[in-house]
Amino acid sequence: MTVNVAILGASGYTGAELVRLIATHPMMRIAALTADRKAGQPMAQVFPHLRHLDLPRLTTIEQVDFSGIDLAFVALPHGLSQALVKELPPKLKVVDLGADFRLTPEGYKSWYGADHVAPELQPEAVYGLTEFYRDRIRAARLVAGTGCNAATVQFALRPLIEARLIDLDDIVCDLKNGISGAGRSLKENMLFAERSEDVAGYSQGGRHRHLGEFDQEFSALVGREVRILFTPHLVPVNRGILASCYVKGDPQAIHAALQARYADEPFCIVLPMGELPAMSHVQGSNFVHLGVVGDRVAGRTLVVSTLDNLNKGSSGQALQNANLMLGLDETLGLMLAPIFP
Amino acid sequence: MTVNVAILGASGYTGAELVRLIATHPMMRIAALTADRKAGQPMAQVFPHLRHLDLPRLTTIEQVDFSGIDLAFVALPHGLSQALVKELPPKLKVVDLGADFRLTPEGYKSWYGADHVAPELQPEAVYGLTEFYRDRIRAARLVAGTGCNAATVQFALRPLIEARLIDLDDIVCDLKNGISGAGRSLKENMLFAERSEDVAGYSQGGRHRHLGEFDQEFSALVGREVRILFTPHLVPVNRGILASCYVKGDPQAIHAALQARYADEPFCIVLPMGELPAMSHVQGSNFVHLGVVGDRVAGRTLVVSTLDNLNKGSSGQALQNANLMLGLDETLGLMLAPIFP
Amino acid sequence: MTVNVAILGASGYTGAELVRLIATHPMMRIAALTADRKAGQPMAQVFPHLRHLDLPRLTTIEQVDFSGIDLAFVALPHGLSQALVKELPPKLKVVDLGADFRLTPEGYKSWYGADHVAPELQPEAVYGLTEFYRDRIRAARLVAGTGCNAATVQFALRPLIEARLIDLDDIVCDLKNGISGAGRSLKENMLFAERSEDVAGYSQGGRHRHLGEFDQEFSALVGREVRILFTPHLVPVNRGILASCYVKGDPQAIHAALQARYADEPFCIVLPMGELPAMSHVQGSNFVHLGVVGDRVAGRTLVVSTLDNLNKGSSGQALQNANLMLGLDETLGLMLAPIFP
Amino acid sequence: MTVNVAILGASGYTGAELVRLIATHPMMRIAALTADRKAGQPMAQVFPHLRHLDLPRLTTIEQVDFSGIDLAFVALPHGLSQALVKELPPKLKVVDLGADFRLTPEGYKSWYGADHVAPELQPEAVYGLTEFYRDRIRAARLVAGTGCNAATVQFALRPLIEARLIDLDDIVCDLKNGISGAGRSLKENMLFAERSEDVAGYSQGGRHRHLGEFDQEFSALVGREVRILFTPHLVPVNRGILASCYVKGDPQAIHAALQARYADEPFCIVLPMGELPAMSHVQGSNFVHLGVVGDRVAGRTLVVSTLDNLNKGSSGQALQNANLMLGLDETLGLMLAPIFP
Repeated sequence: MTVNVAILGASGYTGAELVRLIATHPMMRIAALTADRKAGQPMAQVFPHLRHLDLPRLTTIEQVDFSGIDLAFVALPHGLSQALVKELPPKLKVVDLGADFRLTPEGYKSWYGADHVAPELQPEAVYGLTEFYRDRIRAARLVAGTGCNAATVQFALRPLIEARLIDLDDIVCDLKNGISGAGRSLKENMLFAERSEDVAGYSQGGRHRHLGEFDQEFSALVGREVRILFTPHLVPVNRGILASCYVKGDPQAIHAALQARYADEPFCIVLPMGELPAMSHVQGSNFVHLGVVGDRVAGRTLVVSTLDNLNKGSSGQALQNANLMLGLDETLGLMLAPIFP
Repeated sequence: MTVNVAILGASGYTGAELVRLIATHPMMRIAALTADRKAGQPMAQVFPHLRHLDLPRLTTIEQVDFSGIDLAFVALPHGLSQALVKELPPKLKVVDLGADFRLTPEGYKSWYGADHVAPELQPEAVYGLTEFYRDRIRAARLVAGTGCNAATVQFALRPLIEARLIDLDDIVCDLKNGISGAGRSLKENMLFAERSEDVAGYSQGGRHRHLGEFDQEFSALVGREVRILFTPHLVPVNRGILASCYVKGDPQAIHAALQARYADEPFCIVLPMGELPAMSHVQGSNFVHLGVVGDRVAGRTLVVSTLDNLNKGSSGQALQNANLMLGLDETLGLMLAPIFP
Repeated sequence: MTVNVAILGASGYTGAELVRLIATHPMMRIAALTADRKAGQPMAQVFPHLRHLDLPRLTTIEQVDFSGIDLAFVALPHGLSQALVKELPPKLKVVDLGADFRLTPEGYKSWYGADHVAPELQPEAVYGLTEFYRDRIRAARLVAGTGCNAATVQFALRPLIEARLIDLDDIVCDLKNGISGAGRSLKENMLFAERSEDVAGYSQGGRHRHLGEFDQEFSALVGREVRILFTPHLVPVNRGILASCYVKGDPQAIHAALQARYADEPFCIVLPMGELPAMSHVQGSNFVHLGVVGDRVAGRTLVVSTLDNLNKGSSGQALQNANLMLGLDETLGLMLAPIFP
Repeated sequence: MTVNVAILGASGYTGAELVRLIATHPMMRIAALTADRKAGQPMAQVFPHLRHLDLPRLTTIEQVDFSGIDLAFVALPHGLSQALVKELPPKLKVVDLGADFRLTPEGYKSWYGADHVAPELQPEAVYGLTEFYRDRIRAARLVAGTGCNAATVQFALRPLIEARLIDLDDIVCDLKNGISGAGRSLKENMLFAERSEDVAGYSQGGRHRHLGEFDQEFSALVGREVRILFTPHLVPVNRGILASCYVKGDPQAIHAALQARYADEPFCIVLPMGELPAMSHVQGSNFVHLGVVGDRVAGRTLVVSTLDNLNKGSSGQALQNANLMLGLDETLGLMLAPIFP
């Protein structure tokens, strides 16, 4: 059996990463690739590293014949997905990699400051954090990819919050973010000469939109409002997010809870107690590495999680969800080892 | 059918890369991993990015039971392989990634300044540049990996030299080399702070040992002495070699010759006339990208080739050769797309 | 007037940085440079970027004639300074860049696990955080350089702790550290290929020795024990430390306190409320940039400080202290603008 | 005596570098800074690393009162300088950092494909390669900065071409170029994620506009046409150009000629025979390092030169020329040591 997929918005980094992963998938075929502004170009022109693959030429979305497509990945800038998904065939399975369907209607309005153009679809969308929404994803028609930061932090904290192993009012998450997370769009502060040799925080003070996901998810877990502190920092690395989460709770209990929770998860690996994960050890892969360290100050614990923002943080997660939605083995196309160095 | 392999010298970057590639190989199983100084350690301690794999613990070479092993990859520092290979079971297939069996006895003595300790094996060893020694490799028991620089340049020049499309006495090869080529051994000039923000040539003036391979191979192609100019430069990139070869010859004829030669090769891609390849477009893969550009000065042509030194330049080549020696499809485990960005 | 200085231990990065800075100092002359293992070599061989300077050849310490030397900078690995300083002429002014004289006798023993070999000198040594010990430094014979991390965090927190503007029992400091801080010694994890594309914490759980300085200094400020949480992370940048300090306190009051404290300091710059500093904006200079941001969670504030670990975090601080000790203008040789990009 | 200067086009990297250098100049004051699109902003907003300096706010060019200005640096994109310089007060000394006045009228038209709008000024402009046009620069009103690549290669080759020590018809120059040379303008291929981990040639085949300078200058030296081969390659480094020039000639004679030529030059340093310079050893400085190596192939020589493209390749050269034009010591503001690491 081969399933046919389309990638809508294939000219960005997440689109290219989907192609890279699907190229190793034994049962998935890319039937269409779209990129409105680059329609007509071969993918090899937009991404020469994919030159060896036999891929369909980029088209506009209008040119796609969806009749034979089983599932569409939508990798458009936020705000554009909602209008598009609304127009897609109603039975087409959709994995959206953007922000448009991640939040409740209230959450969306609050964090994105605009009315949603497809409110009728919002209730249907399932939050795509595979390891925590697996059953709902398997049954879903529309799955919303999580924010890459949101995924990284939730792997570290969800089991702890749900079990109330940590003080819910004192969670500090300091993130180090690789540059590809900003995508391929042109911004002065993303130029090589601006980012190389630099580290700097951004979206400081609780303004980053992924906080909408934390608020929604963490509060739902415990039935009360949870507000974490969250500051991302750009680091001169291509891929990767490393989240250092400072929490109040017993390190042994925290480590045990994470080990228990992820024991059967194929992509989540908890390091031995006291060891810290490294960003480069998951690069290019769908793995998450987690570490727990007790501080010399009693009752204070550091939980660190790291993943590849383009893979597990975005396109890998999307493929994992697509596998589930299509009734396939969840790990197909995703067992590539990290690339090091 | 599953074949069993051993990796002798698995604690270096090429050893880790072999493990990464073989992890995607449908018919190959790693039965033994050795590293004398790290014997007893799990591979996950030496290379935490391989943590998700179920791998044998590192042992000494003496501890390996070769009875069930079909082929051994030898990834030891040069000079150590020859003594080791001599002691291995005489029928064991061997792919050596080092320099010990690359050169003729005279070439070895001249470039390495020492007597070979296994001269009886030298005649048997086949030079491992797959695309040019495929039939002999298929039949070989002992295959010698090429130098990573030597491979990069030969892909650009062999067809041109053999067809005498270029002036054999005026070939200038300027290389840009990623840092992982220096391996994991401790050298002051390989520290991050020394290499970051730097570019510098090394082994200047015709002293680099890979020149022994060029001399041997290019001279053999045309039955006369060929001496190219060759200067490698370290650039602050993890993986990759990009060779800029300045030759005298007709650009159209050169481009046509490369296209014809590589038309059926699964890993060698010739770009359209006038386009240059980029190092990042082959990173993490077994592909070689080649480009040809005619200069405004008539009769002068630039031929550029690029590959990943740890993959196609070393471990990927080794696996490709092992596949041939074991009667398997040559591309197994090697079709991973490059990782970009 | 020209003062003569010696740099003892000139073959490390801090030694080279001292030479770079002193080269622009209008009243200071380098009379001696030592490096035991490289004695006899010209400095241009050890550090070719200093090739244009007319510098004394490296010697052993024994070869130095201290009779005409006004001040010695000691840039030796920790543990070696104490034995050396003991043997220097008793009236020679000394700025030690290492850890040997930073801590009280109890602190030293506790954090370095060894008896001090020059306990008679410990009481005399002044802690070299210029902006907070200026008067004592001016009068001192022996000044101990601070840890580079210790300096970075203290610029952010000292005024706040002293004025008790923040909760003393809930201070989280997450640091991002450039690689040159590890020095020029050979360690596998400092190789380019290991650090490039990586971010990882180290000395986790309260084990970093700079905590000895925080314990000592912060507790002294308020007359009670203060124990901060502190986790450094290596980032692939040559120079720079950026400290993200998460505190409980009013952001406006915190910003006002820092502004007031540093209004007259030539090297400490507080950004407008709500702005974050960037590591690359102080690179190569003796400046510290500080930023304060109030979080959406009321009462939670982020204070970020950044400096160049080799300059303000080490050699710049040392020169600033030397200027004071020699009765010179404190800023001589130190007003170089940061280099960007 | 203090001279007043204006920097027209101060929002680019070369503008910022001029400010950084002039900040250490004992006799030069920045009286005006312009940037049309950022007029009204403080320089600290555009370049926060200059925050500690007391600088005039950015204005439009129209707002500048040139009456008290002794010299203007013009750092505008090519094509814009010519119209501007035409409108400046006729006696104002001008150092143009762009391409508009580098070439003869014929050369300009040929390489830039447009008519010059200030042809009356072209004859007056002096080519700003200080070490070779010093006397004419001293007397000039209008000096044209050289291309950064053009400067790098000319330091290596001019003395050799002029003395006909090398074969004029066989010169291959392979350049490695830091990214800041592309400036601060938005281009997809200058994003961090595109340039990090990449090396690739550009302007291949003799299309780079700096060839106009080589053609003009080298041909003038010997009274016949000289056409070099020249291929620049982007390397992931912030600053620096390293030119590997492959020539035919005697290495000893070449080394001797360069040593003799630069013996009295304050910024040009010829390494001992056989040694190669490194890009990081001149970073942040106005120095040029040159190396000469004879190949094992007799009669073939590698000449390598390296400089910082923003400093000696652009703003440092401009300041050096301004010093001459203003009757000041040529080295003022320019003796900063390189920053390493």
